[in-house]
Amino acid sequence: MKIAIAGSGALGSGFGAKLFQNGYDVTLIDSWESHVKAIQTNGLHIDINGEHCHLEIPMYDSRDIPEDVLYDVVFLFPKSMQLKEVLDYIQPHINQSTIVVCTMNGLKHERLIEQYVELPQIVRGVTTWTAGIESPGYTHLMGSGPVEVGALVTEGTDNVKTIVDILNQAELNGVLSDDLHQSIWKKICVNGTANALCTILECNLATLNQSDDAKNLIYKITQEIVHVATIDDVHLNLDEVFEYLIDLNDKVGPHYPSMYQDLINNHRKTEIDYINGAVARLGMEHHIDAPVNHFVANMIHAKEQQLDAQ
Amino acid sequence: MKIAIAGSGALGSGFGAKLFQNGYDVTLIDSWESHVKAIQTNGLHIDINGEHCHLEIPMYDSRDIPEDVLYDVVFLFPKSMQLKEVLDYIQPHINQSTIVVCTMNGLKHERLIEQYVELPQIVRGVTTWTAGIESPGYTHLMGSGPVEVGALVTEGTDNVKTIVDILNQAELNGVLSDDLHQSIWKKICVNGTANALCTILECNLATLNQSDDAKNLIYKITQEIVHVATIDDVHLNLDEVFEYLIDLNDKVGPHYPSMYQDLINNHRKTEIDYINGAVARLGMEHHIDAPVNHFVANMIHAKEQQLDAQ
Repeated sequence: MKIAIAGSGALGSGFGAKLFQNGYDVTLIDSWESHVKAIQTNGLHIDINGEHCHLEIPMYDSRDIPEDVLYDVVFLFPKSMQLKEVLDYIQPHINQSTIVVCTMNGLKHERLIEQYVELPQIVRGVTTWTAGIESPGYTHLMGSGPVEVGALVTEGTDNVKTIVDILNQAELNGVLSDDLHQSIWKKICVNGTANALCTILECNLATLNQSDDAKNLIYKITQEIVHVATIDDVHLNLDEVFEYLIDLNDKVGPHYPSMYQDLINNHRKTEIDYINGAVARLGMEHHIDAPVNHFVANMIHAKEQQLDAQ
Repeated sequence: MKIAIAGSGALGSGFGAKLFQNGYDVTLIDSWESHVKAIQTNGLHIDINGEHCHLEIPMYDSRDIPEDVLYDVVFLFPKSMQLKEVLDYIQPHINQSTIVVCTMNGLKHERLIEQYVELPQIVRGVTTWTAGIESPGYTHLMGSGPVEVGALVTEGTDNVKTIVDILNQAELNGVLSDDLHQSIWKKICVNGTANALCTILECNLATLNQSDDAKNLIYKITQEIVHVATIDDVHLNLDEVFEYLIDLNDKVGPHYPSMYQDLINNHRKTEIDYINGAVARLGMEHHIDAPVNHFVANMIHAKEQQLDAQ
């Protein structure tokens, strides 16, 4: 079974490393030249929960995938705005049997993916693993999972089981989701509050939780997300989700969310259009107002422009 | 005619200086001890549109106003949150003939002032003069006005005329407002966008105007303000106001609004509750939603808490 990691930045490298360590035929693919070259020349240096690993793992530049290679499983791990580019380069290397796994943050990535494969081929999910990249070829992976996955249509159930097995073999803690859409929307509540607010206020999660006014911001964003989630027949309890978010922020206190790292530290464009922006857009499609999420997305974009984010 | 400036910080000192220079019997009053002492000892040093002036102008500490002093006119110039404190100390020194002038930023200050004097005694207005304070006793005043003033009830018309005359005698460019409430709400549009957004994004007005997303933020805040303004029978044209705001930001480009200076530079609490916060509150009273203004007020408060603003 040939597995590709399409988009091998922080989280992609991490998943690839775990699969490789556990005997899978896995290849990393990425478009970032210096990262690709570093791994091709010196292997991947990855810190997994504090343990340093040095892996001679196969790596392709996305422009140099050999023509005749065909993958059985593709894990998609690009930033949301690069998903189309990644699907375009992987398309010649997949067929109607390939399982495409998307545990990326953000809403409705399947709308794009289903332009490349049939719905039953798509395994959608969310993960609580976190990762980072120190320099080309040097990354880290943290956490213990789980990776909750599910099928978008009943015909995809067997594919989901295959992926859960692979994830568990690779010690990535795969779990069959009870309610895939609920898991996705709950993750959107996490990202739509912590990521956006810590980036606007330039603070970590502990600081965010210290202020009743910031909690009020969390509450209002979440209130709208919970409302828009009903379009997917997801009915979250607002107060329960709110408590969950506050607890989570307390637990990971000193952490700066990935959006903060992207924009404030590295002046990179964020995934806001796939999180709060997507909430506002989906709401609009269904005549549900989400002015606060729209405003937050605009605010992050204004900040991107201000910092000349690339 | 005895005039008091109740709250003689930046703008109060500026108005007091212009009145004093033009022969009025004016006294500054303030509670900031070192500022009071500096002016009592060394006079007021004020830069008025680039020209340095040194004035031996009377100044009282608010705790030391002589018992028998009675003022004919009181200009109120505290920060909004100190208005009650100022009215409390000035109350023994006004009577039913005193004219009380309030050109402070913010909405509905008259609700508090009318607990101290009758409505016809109140002259309400807005001004485009700007001012700052460098150190105790050292301030500056910039601009050319106007100071638009009007009456809250017909019986106050003569008092308004008196104040317009005084302002013009003092070269402060007093103007009788065609439509007082419209002037106030238009100023709220200015303060509710430029002040709040430059403070959240930590930028000046030029930077704000450079980004379409920031302009979008300006538009959305203004849209709600224009809607809530209808409760005062004020009907602003949204697109016209928006154009006006963008032009204004262009004109004063490198300027950092006073809220930015208060919070970001000096870690002082802001007047947000009297601007965006007041818009949301007034909206709520009249069942008009203003979620974005509410969100902006929360965001500023979160930032105040984060910066330990006093």
